[in-house]
Amino acid sequence: MPKYTIGVDLGGTTMTAGLVDSSYALLGKVTRPTSLPRPAKDLEQALADLCRTVAADNGVDFADIAYVGIGTPGSVNFTTGFVGYNTNFGYYDWNLGPDLSALLGCKVYVENDANAAAYGEYIAGAARDYRDAVVITLGTGIGSGIILGGKLLRGFNFAAGEMGHTVIVKDGRQCNCGRRGCWERYASARALTEDTQAAMQQHKESLLWQFADHLEAVNAKTPFDAAAAGDAVAKQVLDTWMEYVGCGVANVVNTFEPEVVCIGGGVSNQGEVLLAPVRAYVERETHNITTGRPPVIRACMLRNDAGVIGAAALANSF
Amino acid sequence: MPKYTIGVDLGGTTMTAGLVDSSYALLGKVTRPTSLPRPAKDLEQALADLCRTVAADNGVDFADIAYVGIGTPGSVNFTTGFVGYNTNFGYYDWNLGPDLSALLGCKVYVENDANAAAYGEYIAGAARDYRDAVVITLGTGIGSGIILGGKLLRGFNFAAGEMGHTVIVKDGRQCNCGRRGCWERYASARALTEDTQAAMQQHKESLLWQFADHLEAVNAKTPFDAAAAGDAVAKQVLDTWMEYVGCGVANVVNTFEPEVVCIGGGVSNQGEVLLAPVRAYVERETHNITTGRPPVIRACMLRNDAGVIGAAALANSF
Repeated sequence: MPKYTIGVDLGGTTMTAGLVDSSYALLGKVTRPTSLPRPAKDLEQALADLCRTVAADNGVDFADIAYVGIGTPGSVNFTTGFVGYNTNFGYYDWNLGPDLSALLGCKVYVENDANAAAYGEYIAGAARDYRDAVVITLGTGIGSGIILGGKLLRGFNFAAGEMGHTVIVKDGRQCNCGRRGCWERYASARALTEDTQAAMQQHKESLLWQFADHLEAVNAKTPFDAAAAGDAVAKQVLDTWMEYVGCGVANVVNTFEPEVVCIGGGVSNQGEVLLAPVRAYVERETHNITTGRPPVIRACMLRNDAGVIGAAALANSF
Repeated sequence: MPKYTIGVDLGGTTMTAGLVDSSYALLGKVTRPTSLPRPAKDLEQALADLCRTVAADNGVDFADIAYVGIGTPGSVNFTTGFVGYNTNFGYYDWNLGPDLSALLGCKVYVENDANAAAYGEYIAGAARDYRDAVVITLGTGIGSGIILGGKLLRGFNFAAGEMGHTVIVKDGRQCNCGRRGCWERYASARALTEDTQAAMQQHKESLLWQFADHLEAVNAKTPFDAAAAGDAVAKQVLDTWMEYVGCGVANVVNTFEPEVVCIGGGVSNQGEVLLAPVRAYVERETHNITTGRPPVIRACMLRNDAGVIGAAALANSF
């Protein structure tokens, strides 16, 4: 009986394979450059080598690997292991799952990277020991991974869980997806950065300029730093942004009423400075609907390991 | 092996029990007035009598009833069969499931009436033969029943599926739930009625006045009738309203990517006059996310029988 699995977090810049035991403890990791652009067959060989390496480095015979799971950008058909077009790779019709399975001689599961990371938090992180969980990642966009009764909600074309593209401001800001007013246009880390930049241009006196001396230096941490230093402009930007975060989380709660909503992305490092206002807003907005105790709202825990661990647990996710 | 189940649709005005066979065909129904207000114990006896009557009227021995399912207004704990406060009944802490089970000598399941009706459409109506379905009912509010892999999504306090109370217009119209800008404030049948009334007050020349000679006579059918007769004001009201319907359905699709979205409520009798524009809007708004074929969008089929049939199938719903 194989006792280990391997999870791979395949990114545009680096790829990391992690060896995981049957209780989902991460025993070791190997990270290498993805080295794009390169031919698909070449990358598949590199992935196979990465998987063999992480097993060998930790003294595990590859015959003891039950399966390999991959989290990758792009639209993934979980059933076939087929990856649709993704600009990072530039491959059309990438048959990743079957190809890698042939190279490694074991079962290979392939999942969208955001879903894999959410599943990692469910298996071993902030959503562990809850039945239903929604993991919201505030980054360039807003990713959401929805886990119900231990299973990832995938949708019939594997595109469920795109709550970043639910409209919360009808006819609002234009989104890349073609809609107007999507949640991620108001509540992503990128939206916070852009709103901070806009406020700085209007307020040359703001302390924000001490934390970012030019607009390109602004990131989502900048307004938190300036607000902590007492800057009213930064505080106003943050308050508005956190209300949008809360509005979307309240929508999540009224839709799924999960036991737990986990918030990830670099901005979740702010901890209670972010979580406490969002929690208060969500509880106020949902208390007439969810009449029992409110869902837990907390930060993700696993950071970069979430994708690896989630990928290594994919056999449980369907 | 019991071959039949009974489903009850318990409303504030009438209650209907239906006898259903193992393939969920409705063999017969009995409807009686609910006769509120009345003591809870009295109503429980009436419900028990109703169930025994529908069996006897159809020549079935009550010993051949596998279980009784009840769809009722109010917040229901499906696990315990306990019904929270509902203004229709005026009972606090109604122990409906266990009480009725004791009276009938069989298992009794209790579910929220909207969920029961959605489940009926899933079992025997417009969502039959699909894996994941969302049933949207456009009425006074917007009800939603979410069925994933054959199971009702209930949430950890049994309040999931309240998509009518997801905000699509941040800081918009005040909703009874306490939020502002909820979907149901823009896209329910009641919202259509109210928007029609407002347009009539601004447009005394509108044909709408020929279909409703005073404002209290307006209902959600009025603008459809006037638009069909060529009235531009009615058409404008309808176009705006249908776009809000579509906006929320697109949110449903980007969240769940179900195989099918069923639209119910009296307004769904309009058929393609409603469905075609909503379908076009939703497909345009979601085609960059759900890159495969779009979900089916169709009208509910079972009307008043949905609640009875869904209640009669509740043992499969968890």
